[in-house]
Amino acid sequence: MTPPVTPAQNPATGQIPAAEARGPRNEPRNTKDDSLRDLIERGDFAGAQAWARERQVWEVVDEIDRMRPVDAVAAFRLLDPERAFDVFEDLEPNGQQAILEVMRGAEFSEFVDSLEPDDRARMLGELPAKVARRVLAGLSPEERAMTATMLGYPEDSAGRYMTPQVVVLRENLSAGAALAHVRARGADAETIYTLPVVDTQRRLTGVVDLRELVLADAETTVAELVVTSPPHVRATEPAERAARLMADENILDLPVVDAEGRLLGLLTFDDADEVIEDADSEDASRQGGAQHWGGHYMAVSVLQLARTRAVWLVLLLVVSLLTVTVAHGFEDALEEVAALALFIPLLIGTGGKVGTQASSACVRALAIGEVRPSDMVRVTLREAATGLLLGAGLGLLAIGAGLFFTGLDVAVVVGVSLLLICLLGALVGGLSPLVARRFGIDPALVSAPVVTTVVDVLGLVIYFVVASALLGL
Amino acid sequence: MTPPVTPAQNPATGQIPAAEARGPRNEPRNTKDDSLRDLIERGDFAGAQAWARERQVWEVVDEIDRMRPVDAVAAFRLLDPERAFDVFEDLEPNGQQAILEVMRGAEFSEFVDSLEPDDRARMLGELPAKVARRVLAGLSPEERAMTATMLGYPEDSAGRYMTPQVVVLRENLSAGAALAHVRARGADAETIYTLPVVDTQRRLTGVVDLRELVLADAETTVAELVVTSPPHVRATEPAERAARLMADENILDLPVVDAEGRLLGLLTFDDADEVIEDADSEDASRQGGAQHWGGHYMAVSVLQLARTRAVWLVLLLVVSLLTVTVAHGFEDALEEVAALALFIPLLIGTGGKVGTQASSACVRALAIGEVRPSDMVRVTLREAATGLLLGAGLGLLAIGAGLFFTGLDVAVVVGVSLLLICLLGALVGGLSPLVARRFGIDPALVSAPVVTTVVDVLGLVIYFVVASALLGL
Repeated sequence: MTPPVTPAQNPATGQIPAAEARGPRNEPRNTKDDSLRDLIERGDFAGAQAWARERQVWEVVDEIDRMRPVDAVAAFRLLDPERAFDVFEDLEPNGQQAILEVMRGAEFSEFVDSLEPDDRARMLGELPAKVARRVLAGLSPEERAMTATMLGYPEDSAGRYMTPQVVVLRENLSAGAALAHVRARGADAETIYTLPVVDTQRRLTGVVDLRELVLADAETTVAELVVTSPPHVRATEPAERAARLMADENILDLPVVDAEGRLLGLLTFDDADEVIEDADSEDASRQGGAQHWGGHYMAVSVLQLARTRAVWLVLLLVVSLLTVTVAHGFEDALEEVAALALFIPLLIGTGGKVGTQASSACVRALAIGEVRPSDMVRVTLREAATGLLLGAGLGLLAIGAGLFFTGLDVAVVVGVSLLLICLLGALVGGLSPLVARRFGIDPALVSAPVVTTVVDVLGLVIYFVVASALLGL
Repeated sequence: MTPPVTPAQNPATGQIPAAEARGPRNEPRNTKDDSLRDLIERGDFAGAQAWARERQVWEVVDEIDRMRPVDAVAAFRLLDPERAFDVFEDLEPNGQQAILEVMRGAEFSEFVDSLEPDDRARMLGELPAKVARRVLAGLSPEERAMTATMLGYPEDSAGRYMTPQVVVLRENLSAGAALAHVRARGADAETIYTLPVVDTQRRLTGVVDLRELVLADAETTVAELVVTSPPHVRATEPAERAARLMADENILDLPVVDAEGRLLGLLTFDDADEVIEDADSEDASRQGGAQHWGGHYMAVSVLQLARTRAVWLVLLLVVSLLTVTVAHGFEDALEEVAALALFIPLLIGTGGKVGTQASSACVRALAIGEVRPSDMVRVTLREAATGLLLGAGLGLLAIGAGLFFTGLDVAVVVGVSLLLICLLGALVGGLSPLVARRFGIDPALVSAPVVTTVVDVLGLVIYFVVASALLGL
């Protein structure tokens, strides 16, 4: 949340610049301007400081994320103290680590003690153990206990992302008394917009929005304003599930409870946004057939980039050797009718595309909850029908086109094979994500490269079998 | 942190059900339960009503989204009136249309008049013109004017998604007076958590969070609490850009202004979530090589599904015919060294995978702002280096594997070709999204199918040129 700005404001200076002065997203305000990185690399620290002061927090974060660690530290040192926290909390773990490593003694303790508990717990989960121990040792006992509790929840669980610092209410309070309580306790809480209502055992019984409290008469009771049975999650549930639930229900902050239903904290909207952005980035990486590196694209090294991609490539190269084996088995047919070889790239390429379309649709539909694991039969029927429709149309086109290069017999083989390969592609692409989910594997791992490899191998078999049958090879 | 407050509560009424009673996301509470669709199709309306009453809004929405329109209408009629609005606003346009079409006279006018202005404007943008006109005619003059203004902004712009009903403050108010103003005006506003501060010309000068107002002393002035130069967007800017800015800055509600900087409304967090989910779903469809249908996967018909996929498939099939042409041009070489044909699927398949990895990484990095259009040179160098690294490793593997099937000369041809094809794939995949963006085309259109098609054609040329050169064909 934004800190208050104290001094009274001069109307001459307080005016915000016209929208275009700040420049739309993704484009520097003035393309002729130097970037913060340029300024730091040139050693123009006064210029860098001025640059950072004029920019929004996300612009500063994005620039620092792109720097080498040594420059990131230099840039961070130039920030105004009140912005440094906001910038730090949004940085990639690499930059956070570099900055922490150069801090000493009291400065270090004070800094890590002042971070939000949820940001700190997540940061600790990503730091090397040595740095993490130093951070923990630097905390006050109270903050250390809170952080240790949060670190006890599984990685990527709601417990890691929630804020434990919330203001809770009881049902028998009047709205006026509740508001007074919020005023008294609210300064330390990360949010006061969602006020969980608990019983004497601290079990969650409902939530009240601050909005309702502010708009209500002072004599109304909390019991009249409370929404009972609110959506909530357990601390051990995946944070992504919690965040998607919040998006589905338009919820600002989601209560997090333990196995007995006792309130532990709130998952706030900004952390939920981060969870979803990370989950979707991970899905995008996996759908592209790479491991997720979890860092900024421009900051990750070429070696790391190659490593995230090599695993799948080598694995799929080995599987692709099956295509050589299949073609090898039909080498006589290829030598007899050389024209058959001409259509191999077109056939298996198209099958891979149909499979890619089906898998990406199903992976996304699973991710946002439109498709459920129990939909397997319906999805199979839908994708099979779609694949047959597409295959029929493309098969006819391919027969027509084939006649330019070869005789009718081979053209018909190509058309019939394409029909079957499209059906195959749609089935492999549509079903695999659901099968993966059923086995507890992330459906996003069913990527275009995986689908195309499977379709390449099976598609070749279909092609040669159809050719052998129709051409009597 | 914040200990529970004041006296005890009646434990009999306030208890929430245990977390598992509600069931985690994506899984029905009890797999043996009937779904709402089953109940409606069976005509068990009492059961359906009970089902809907026990479920969260998003569960009801998801069930209705999956129904045929006639069943959707029946299900909607069973909802408690106070939930009907929440459900309606989250439905897919198909369902909304079916429901509106059966409403008559006063019921219809009352219903559409009560929708939130931003939800109504977006719904109208997606309804057929005839239905949209009927909705507009049913509105009160005031609501009609507001809706017409919002419909004047471009589709998918911030103006379509903002809420115009906001509570604004002046800087010279005291916190106490400001809070009284919020109480007086807040009931009609979609949000009161972000309070824009404007000057006498209604130009945006800052924002105050309700949190600051509630926690401040009554005598503090708004000028002391205001955050000046807040992030904001113009109504004509794309809603996606606004929503991503909110996520980057952890902003709850974003002020929307006109060209002169005058306040028009606020983009609220829930609408921003919807914008990002839709944008990411559209990217996922496009990345899969299909048009985005914009509906629920389980509700869209097989014919529609096939249509969204056919356009790219036909287009790419035509381009893929170039592979036949290329292979045709080298038919003599293929007949001379038949072993060359064996490796075609492996070579172009691997090139397409490297290209897919690069393009999906760059498309996502562009979407979330990690890569900027000005990074073209750096991205090219990074992807080229990555492609060479991967190609060198895979090329060596391919030479080794090739020796199982053929002689050293062809194996070396395969290895060298693979090196070059990996470089090609990385460059095509990494650069195309940036080139697309530069020409104002959505980078997500650079999909795995597009990249593999380009790599298929150019990769074949590389393979045959290398083979001709090294084997002296």
